[in-house]
Amino acid sequence: MRLFITSLALLAPALLFAQDPARYVRPIIGTAKMGHTYPGATVPFGMVQLSPDTDTIPYEMNGKYNPDVYRYCAGYQYQDPTITGFSHTHFSGTGHSDLGDFLIMPANGPVQLNPGTADHPENGYRSRFSHQNETAEPAYYKVLLDESRITAELTATNRTGMHRYTFASGDNPHIVLDLMANLYNYTNKNVWTFVRVENDTLVTGYRQTNGWARTRTLYFAMTFSKPIRRYGHQNLASDVYKGFWRKFNQTENFPEMAGRQIRAWFGFDAQPGEAVTVKMALSPVSTEGALNNLRAENPGWDFDAVRRQGRDAWNRELSKVKADMLKEDDLVNFYTALYHTYLGPTTYADADGTYRGIDQNNHRAEGWTNYSTFSLWDTYRALHPLFNILQPGRNADMVKSMLEHYNQSVHKMLPVWSHQGNENWCMIGYHSVSVIADAIMKGNIKGYDALQALEACAATARYKPYDGIGYYMELGYVPEDKNGSSVSKTLEYAYDDWCIAQVAKKLGRNDLYTEFSKRAENYRNVFDGTTGFMRPRLSNGTFRKDFDVLSTHGQGYIEGNAWNYSLYVPHAPATMIDMMGGKKQFTGHLDSLFTMHLPDAFFAETEDITREGIIGNYVHGNEPAHHAAYLYNWTDAPWKTQERVRMIIEKMYKPTPDGLGGNDDCGQMSAWYLFTALGFYPVCPGSTEYALGSPTVVSAEIKLENGRTFNVKTVNQGAKNVYVRKAELNGKVLNRFISHDDIMNGGTLVFHMSAKPAK
Amino acid sequence: MRLFITSLALLAPALLFAQDPARYVRPIIGTAKMGHTYPGATVPFGMVQLSPDTDTIPYEMNGKYNPDVYRYCAGYQYQDPTITGFSHTHFSGTGHSDLGDFLIMPANGPVQLNPGTADHPENGYRSRFSHQNETAEPAYYKVLLDESRITAELTATNRTGMHRYTFASGDNPHIVLDLMANLYNYTNKNVWTFVRVENDTLVTGYRQTNGWARTRTLYFAMTFSKPIRRYGHQNLASDVYKGFWRKFNQTENFPEMAGRQIRAWFGFDAQPGEAVTVKMALSPVSTEGALNNLRAENPGWDFDAVRRQGRDAWNRELSKVKADMLKEDDLVNFYTALYHTYLGPTTYADADGTYRGIDQNNHRAEGWTNYSTFSLWDTYRALHPLFNILQPGRNADMVKSMLEHYNQSVHKMLPVWSHQGNENWCMIGYHSVSVIADAIMKGNIKGYDALQALEACAATARYKPYDGIGYYMELGYVPEDKNGSSVSKTLEYAYDDWCIAQVAKKLGRNDLYTEFSKRAENYRNVFDGTTGFMRPRLSNGTFRKDFDVLSTHGQGYIEGNAWNYSLYVPHAPATMIDMMGGKKQFTGHLDSLFTMHLPDAFFAETEDITREGIIGNYVHGNEPAHHAAYLYNWTDAPWKTQERVRMIIEKMYKPTPDGLGGNDDCGQMSAWYLFTALGFYPVCPGSTEYALGSPTVVSAEIKLENGRTFNVKTVNQGAKNVYVRKAELNGKVLNRFISHDDIMNGGTLVFHMSAKPAK
Repeated sequence: MRLFITSLALLAPALLFAQDPARYVRPIIGTAKMGHTYPGATVPFGMVQLSPDTDTIPYEMNGKYNPDVYRYCAGYQYQDPTITGFSHTHFSGTGHSDLGDFLIMPANGPVQLNPGTADHPENGYRSRFSHQNETAEPAYYKVLLDESRITAELTATNRTGMHRYTFASGDNPHIVLDLMANLYNYTNKNVWTFVRVENDTLVTGYRQTNGWARTRTLYFAMTFSKPIRRYGHQNLASDVYKGFWRKFNQTENFPEMAGRQIRAWFGFDAQPGEAVTVKMALSPVSTEGALNNLRAENPGWDFDAVRRQGRDAWNRELSKVKADMLKEDDLVNFYTALYHTYLGPTTYADADGTYRGIDQNNHRAEGWTNYSTFSLWDTYRALHPLFNILQPGRNADMVKSMLEHYNQSVHKMLPVWSHQGNENWCMIGYHSVSVIADAIMKGNIKGYDALQALEACAATARYKPYDGIGYYMELGYVPEDKNGSSVSKTLEYAYDDWCIAQVAKKLGRNDLYTEFSKRAENYRNVFDGTTGFMRPRLSNGTFRKDFDVLSTHGQGYIEGNAWNYSLYVPHAPATMIDMMGGKKQFTGHLDSLFTMHLPDAFFAETEDITREGIIGNYVHGNEPAHHAAYLYNWTDAPWKTQERVRMIIEKMYKPTPDGLGGNDDCGQMSAWYLFTALGFYPVCPGSTEYALGSPTVVSAEIKLENGRTFNVKTVNQGAKNVYVRKAELNGKVLNRFISHDDIMNGGTLVFHMSAKPAK
Repeated sequence: MRLFITSLALLAPALLFAQDPARYVRPIIGTAKMGHTYPGATVPFGMVQLSPDTDTIPYEMNGKYNPDVYRYCAGYQYQDPTITGFSHTHFSGTGHSDLGDFLIMPANGPVQLNPGTADHPENGYRSRFSHQNETAEPAYYKVLLDESRITAELTATNRTGMHRYTFASGDNPHIVLDLMANLYNYTNKNVWTFVRVENDTLVTGYRQTNGWARTRTLYFAMTFSKPIRRYGHQNLASDVYKGFWRKFNQTENFPEMAGRQIRAWFGFDAQPGEAVTVKMALSPVSTEGALNNLRAENPGWDFDAVRRQGRDAWNRELSKVKADMLKEDDLVNFYTALYHTYLGPTTYADADGTYRGIDQNNHRAEGWTNYSTFSLWDTYRALHPLFNILQPGRNADMVKSMLEHYNQSVHKMLPVWSHQGNENWCMIGYHSVSVIADAIMKGNIKGYDALQALEACAATARYKPYDGIGYYMELGYVPEDKNGSSVSKTLEYAYDDWCIAQVAKKLGRNDLYTEFSKRAENYRNVFDGTTGFMRPRLSNGTFRKDFDVLSTHGQGYIEGNAWNYSLYVPHAPATMIDMMGGKKQFTGHLDSLFTMHLPDAFFAETEDITREGIIGNYVHGNEPAHHAAYLYNWTDAPWKTQERVRMIIEKMYKPTPDGLGGNDDCGQMSAWYLFTALGFYPVCPGSTEYALGSPTVVSAEIKLENGRTFNVKTVNQGAKNVYVRKAELNGKVLNRFISHDDIMNGGTLVFHMSAKPAK
């Protein structure tokens, strides 16, 4: 009996902790400036991201690119004074955008079917708001709309969003459904819109858009807790054929709407203080599918219960890692990062498994979940490797989703950057192969055929029409005069090819091993020994004369200059270091990277980064050098890795709205943080090795899906004790690296911290 | 043995006849001027109508209606010198249009991705042709393309079109797939187009259009008998977001195309004299559905076998009526009319029964066929009544299709004019209820619930937002100042209401019988005793002062002036005759109708008719007075019916391309012909009574689906013997009418003809 009580006393703090790690999550982090995160309500890997949008900026103004649009990749900018409404789909942390589907805004008084302006919100349906009246938590968002004094609350299930609007006035309470609202709203982005008022509490519809996703259709079913008393819509496109529909007065109480540019409204009888609850289910397949999703996931009207379910879902996922940190801000950063990594890839199928494929046919995922939103150029680096530890089941389904994409692809290519039944071809490389290789090499082969996956990787790597692959296969590099960003492409292809070779070797396909091992050496072909940098080469075999090692645009690189990209041979760092003059010279190169001062002109022309996302010339806000700080492990100064990563974490991750030093990029920035905080990092996904760094956790307990537990512990952890004197796995000293098996077998990794480097 | 031989000898001519009545069908009839029929290949009630189009006329020119477009409702005008290509969907005989989906044209030499002009076909892919080199038969069409000397042959199954192109030259043989081609091509009619070159013999895709059908998507799968060696496309719309697809050269050999305005081409290696066969399957659901349709219906490459199957299918349907006529031209008219009546409604579902509903969701018809293309304002009059005799099984499925439309309708309305998953709201009335009532009253209740059908009829008749129904229910008539064409609407609603009342009575729903019997009297409310005409009435109760009995436009009528429409009380002709002054005065009115001379100005402003479609002021080219000639049966001069109908048949139906006196209107004109040729006509569908006329057949044997045979025979038939001296059913004298049961019970109706009227 006494023992029992003691056990409870010991367990209590841990239990308390595990029950609600969600309390450390601040979805508002990253919503200012460059983070491009959204503060709204969603569940882990959920299809719905129900979040406030603070402006409606078109991609083009007078036929020209509008640079302001970039700020609105996630719809919300913390500095903005107004909210235009609450839409149901958002990317987290991207640097290009789409979505913002099905924007809803509650209002009182005369119906205003236009968003108004930030300066004059009273001229439209938008409203001023204050962060003091705003709450953002996992699966819950709340804000007071200043003009109407309506309290808006949002929560979500996987495929449904739920809104509770408490009206302060009984003067024509209504909601606007603005189907013209889009993130990255190109000219004619709306291809078609179709809406039906099925009865006085149900509205269904869909919208097809042509944007980042070329051919994307999303369906909805929207229900209300109170009957619609009156409704109407505007159909603003003049180029829609009206035909014999003109015999109806379609603007008021007419239940069928179709066109390109539709804004609708729905009015209720509600008393001051009364809440109207709205549920909107999404479907990639049909309005019938959306309605089925609503019935399957969110049949009732208890907003608070749905909110609790959402928070419970978050706590289940977040509590898989129990971290102890030096201070609460660190816990906030840690669990917010974990939250960010679980925002995607997103579920993309109805509750019955049906989804729209990239062949535009419907397919059914039975016994697995189809995922979408694969920002692979970012996420192959650390996010998917993180999932192979924390979410191996979901990661296997993600691999399966990519393979189904391949099967449906007329190009027979794995996804490059795909979302919602579309390949958008953004960025470079064919990094699906890295994600697949990482899963296969780490033994995470579940629900898909590894040999078939290998074939898909090889076919992808041989698809000549894609981004210079034809030249690459012929010449061993992408020639800059034929295909831009040629150095970045060559280096990333070579790494991807190495991944394929590893899988081929493991699966006994020696033919493919030979073919792709050879290709994996192609990084050598763009190395210029005279400058010591990777350098754009022309189709005649010579290096291009113009060469600016600081510039990116037009210089053979993308999102990273020669200083950063020259470090990109993750599969052969030792060889790379030799090529670059040996360990000592390479250490100097790395030191310079982190310490050099860049001219202001640099920032004027560089995409996706500001001074905040940069340390010296090291660009943490972009991804190509995410592994760079760990490369000291291959020199004689691994302590410099420890020093650098602690500096990066401190500088680039803060528990504030503007706390992220760059786009979170669908969780890649956060995944970098989490690995680094835990003390190890996957420098080369596709290998089973992690480079050790310097943990920021005091301790962490990782509950693995295989039932085992992997513990990270520190001795003498402290803000200044950034150096690792010794690392021990289950009592055995580790030398700079740890293997995946060592983690998955469970056990304890102890870092002995020190304020002095172990030179 | 001898007896046996005698029997054979007796049977032989009949058998020969029954085996190939298709030989009398001339699909070219009606392709000149007003008939608006198409000459191409189709099977009975088939989803595919694969037919040549002779020009590509937009609905608008410089923002204004282009009146020439009307000539191209079916895509083909006999007088035209060029063919632009062969498309897979066409209406037969409509006066407004849509479709023309997936136009294919074979060519040689340089690829020209534009249609060229009729004057200069050499500047595009179109070609001159000559009727001497043209063959049009049931399920087969052939033409020689003058420029390229390519012989093009077409045939079809229900859901697939099959092309055989015999190339005269080996110079770059290719086909153009012009996805910009549309019938009635409005600005931005193409909403979206998506095409994939799946492999070297398969292309799939779809197109969404916004035209007469507001939200219509049609899918295809196209296969080739020879591999595609090279291909390409133009994407002409400048307003499509190109995004990261720009990294590809998409114009040549790039397998995925999407946008609004796409023209593609596919090249083959073919020798002079070699044929390339192309099959295109359609689906209302998906490209996968189209591919399944192809596999289910047309898996092989034997063009001639498919052509034979198509002709066999026609012969099976055509031989249900074995007609003997005075001369071969009459047989041509008779069987061509029968052919035209079997062109629609058209199948609208995949081979597995799946179709796109008007709710834009997919539905599955199991154990029945879903039909579309319901031109009900036309076809309720005679086409569906004809089907209740010749095609009761299909007609029951058509009723079920209409009820499913109702179930899917957010308005809870039965179809008005529907095609391909859309209500287009063309014309007036709610004549689905007539079609349903006619089926129920004639006992053709199969596969649907009659009471549910009655409820659907009543709901439709009470849908107040539709075309003045609210006013009609309130005032007993549609007021012209509130809703135009008010007289036509009032009269047709009253008739439709009578239909509902009959069904209600039969099914024991006395509440509905009372309600709709009362409404059926509403024709009285627009009768102006002072003029003796039905006349537009205002909401204040008075008749409108402006009243032009010859004019239609703006005068309270549609497609028929006061002279014609005043006769429209099909459910109470006797009362109507009384109202109009009694039998004698009414006979005079009818005589005047058929004999008066109209001023030329009349034709300038009247829709859908020319002098050719008119006899006196009787407009046979439009439908409202199709029953008029039979009204003499309610006077003391039934012989005038006999005289008039023979005159109408002779004047309005000729075995020539310009032989139809007006739009065939999805078979209504042809159904009028067939009933009249057989000697009886359904003046009031929804009743079970047919008025007798004057048959033009010498004899006819109708094989009913119930296994019985109904025979029409004549004694003393001749071109001048237009009068009926006596009519006998199974030896019993009939007085002016025959009942549906009498027909369906089988038996023999004998007309004793005479050159003199039986006054």
